[in-house]
Amino acid sequence: MSRTLEYTVSHSLTAAQCNAQRELAPAQLVQQLIEAATCHADSLDFGFRRLQSLGILWVLSRISFKMDRYPQVFETYSITTWVESFNRHFSERNYMISGADGQPIGYAHTVWMAIDLRSRRPADLSVLGDLNRLICDRPCPVGKGALIRRPENPDRVNPYTFQVSDIDCNRHVNSARYVELVINQMELAIFDRNLLHHFEIAYKHEARFGDSVTVESQTEGETVTTAIMAGDTPACLARYTLTPRTPEPCGSCL
Amino acid sequence: MSRTLEYTVSHSLTAAQCNAQRELAPAQLVQQLIEAATCHADSLDFGFRRLQSLGILWVLSRISFKMDRYPQVFETYSITTWVESFNRHFSERNYMISGADGQPIGYAHTVWMAIDLRSRRPADLSVLGDLNRLICDRPCPVGKGALIRRPENPDRVNPYTFQVSDIDCNRHVNSARYVELVINQMELAIFDRNLLHHFEIAYKHEARFGDSVTVESQTEGETVTTAIMAGDTPACLARYTLTPRTPEPCGSCL
Repeated sequence: MSRTLEYTVSHSLTAAQCNAQRELAPAQLVQQLIEAATCHADSLDFGFRRLQSLGILWVLSRISFKMDRYPQVFETYSITTWVESFNRHFSERNYMISGADGQPIGYAHTVWMAIDLRSRRPADLSVLGDLNRLICDRPCPVGKGALIRRPENPDRVNPYTFQVSDIDCNRHVNSARYVELVINQMELAIFDRNLLHHFEIAYKHEARFGDSVTVESQTEGETVTTAIMAGDTPACLARYTLTPRTPEPCGSCL
Repeated sequence: MSRTLEYTVSHSLTAAQCNAQRELAPAQLVQQLIEAATCHADSLDFGFRRLQSLGILWVLSRISFKMDRYPQVFETYSITTWVESFNRHFSERNYMISGADGQPIGYAHTVWMAIDLRSRRPADLSVLGDLNRLICDRPCPVGKGALIRRPENPDRVNPYTFQVSDIDCNRHVNSARYVELVINQMELAIFDRNLLHHFEIAYKHEARFGDSVTVESQTEGETVTTAIMAGDTPACLARYTLTPRTPEPCGSCL
């Protein structure tokens, strides 16, 4: 396994994998960002396996990505990732997504928190020694972003109960599933006409199988804010911008 | 691209991909069976791309799989597929799933129907010439199976409306999503204690974004039958058997 400060993985988008717009679905992108991080961290020996042996777990705290376009059906695209920073409890990680021609089509930024497997409280990464040698100073145009607030006047409110297929290997709701739940508050035609240009999600509290939540969404201009609320506690807070597709809606390819 | 009668693809199950039992999720298996078929058919020039140029589409009509166990987290497993038969409208395709040690852990059988892209009626595959040269006589212990009937006395009935994330590149509900919808009728603990050993699903009528369905399930001994009904029309009919996990429930690994 290579031990380099940047890690690149290639994917090819099959017809069976793509969404209704014949593109990589945003939740699938999130899944692949998580996987790229996992593989890279494992290759540098600070991944899930090593941390598990120390009773520590990496938990995704925040994702922000900006896409000028999404990979299209049959396109071979790549994801490159590198670590921006470490501190005692957190690590920031960046990504570049490139199209078939090698040109960047988007960037992403993630924040990961180390927690104690048993207590679920923040863990101390200093047991891993000096991690600063793993930092790469390559710049990324997408950063952590501003605080996301619960919508004050939601225009859509829907209930949801987490199901078998939503649960991940840690018995919590899968990070990518929250992204689907956020997006599923909208009509399909919205995504035919608009590109999900900038998407941010902050994971606040872990939800489990059978938990019932209320999904509150509010649209203001091009920006939609969605809160997944377990009672008065946010499980997730998300914010995204929709920009009209040019030159014409994706529906024309159908 | 190789042009052989058998096609094998390897996968490695990452922590981010696996389900609550730390195994390959059945819906993800179905997705990978579809992808393997797509890649193999493309390599032999009777896949989606060639058929699309003729105004024809492959539609999955039925899947049946039997798994002695599922691939586990971090396991590298492989899927081998081959064509069992062709006739004017249908093709049958088989699969073997092998674990990290190369030994078979399960088999699958699928039925694909060719339909006209515009009329959505059965298409004539004879325009592709003699396809019998693509048949492989390798045996498969899983076959098409018996008719699946709508439950007469369902013990669980739940409504569902198809969402943005359920829709595939043909603007219909994704085949793997139906599998999740079937499985989501059960409690998570059922799958901790039992292996989804044999699973069969027949795709009857295409559903679209916003369609509302009723999901009816009936358990008889180890067998569960589930119908996804759009009014009185079945969208899907599924049947599966749950066998107790031995030596102990999967929950112990958590």
